Amino acid sequence: MKKLQDKIISDGKVLSESVLKVDSFLNHQIDPPLMQAIGEEFASRFKEDGITKILTLESSGIAPAMMTGLVLGVPAVFARKRKSLTLVDHMYTASVHSFTKNETNDISVSKDFLKKEDVVLVMDDFLANGQAALGLLDIVEQAGAKLAGIGIVIEKGFQPGGKLLRERGIRIETLANISSLENGNVSFYEEAKIQ
Amino acid sequence: MKKLQDKIISDGKVLSESVLKVDSFLNHQIDPPLMQAIGEEFASRFKEDGITKILTLESSGIAPAMMTGLVLGVPAVFARKRKSLTLVDHMYTASVHSFTKNETNDISVSKDFLKKEDVVLVMDDFLANGQAALGLLDIVEQAGAKLAGIGIVIEKGFQPGGKLLRERGIRIETLANISSLENGNVSFYEEAKIQ
Repeated sequence: MKKLQDKIISDGKVLSESVLKVDSFLNHQIDPPLMQAIGEEFASRFKEDGITKILTLESSGIAPAMMTGLVLGVPAVFARKRKSLTLVDHMYTASVHSFTKNETNDISVSKDFLKKEDVVLVMDDFLANGQAALGLLDIVEQAGAKLAGIGIVIEKGFQPGGKLLRERGIRIETLANISSLENGNVSFYEEAKIQ
Repeated sequence: MKKLQDKIISDGKVLSESVLKVDSFLNHQIDPPLMQAIGEEFASRFKEDGITKILTLESSGIAPAMMTGLVLGVPAVFARKRKSLTLVDHMYTASVHSFTKNETNDISVSKDFLKKEDVVLVMDDFLANGQAALGLLDIVEQAGAKLAGIGIVIEKGFQPGGKLLRERGIRIETLANISSLENGNVSFYEEAKIQ
């Protein structure tokens, strides 16, 4: 998605060879028209898949998930993160390890909002090691729902998450797939090379 | 806002005389068309105020804040919550006590995204005791920015936050102001009585 790639190049900050900061339009300050364009792009890619629900993770997944839900005409559910869960009645839960923060959080989704009849589009802002996506997939599986695929705003294609998930036969749609952050520069994979 | 009040009556769950759960459309599962209507309503109420930025708090404030920003044509910034902040360089921070959870969190906003030239609309999903709003106002003040007002999706008008803030001369626009949750029923104040 050229508009997003241009925004990453103009406004993203490369902090190291593995860290890209996009706080100015996605993770802290949100650019609403860009989120709308992202929602339209995901909706267009998944419009034939009979999606009934979008599942994401708080907080940075909420804006793109909601805009995609708006265009597709389906609700967006955000899993909640907690250090540890005491009340797990009536909740699907999974553990997600963050390598960047070196901590493990439980994530949870109420059983009220994910049913076995659902066709789910899992979404997240970033895909790096794939831990958050795996946690969300675990929850989809617990619900017995059907997974249509995963929509990722920015993939760090040089990290192992994307490969891991694609090898399982999961469809991943990535709007900007970064091949390298070396020397402070952002490089992208060509769209054709990802698929 | 009648559409929102109807949704609260049909889908909200009264858990006690002070707790209303709206997880099915606002706090966990999000109803995108309702968020769009909420965004349009807030934008209409604040369209003459020269808003340059919306400031909210993760996670449940993000959806209504982004939709309002989309209609007003301005970015939405969400303050981040953390148990305690170690890295506070280049951040505005404030403490927010939650009476329901009986815990105090620090909230923070990067100095990059809030400037003294900004005219800020503070938004949140709920207003009860007013602690979150006070934390956000503290951050607006630290930035030296101008506060246009506060936009609240659901106010629990029988709790003290709204009175406290209005007595300071702050403009609050509330879309649904609850007068009582007694006997498992939701009652609303008339719009005219709030102002």
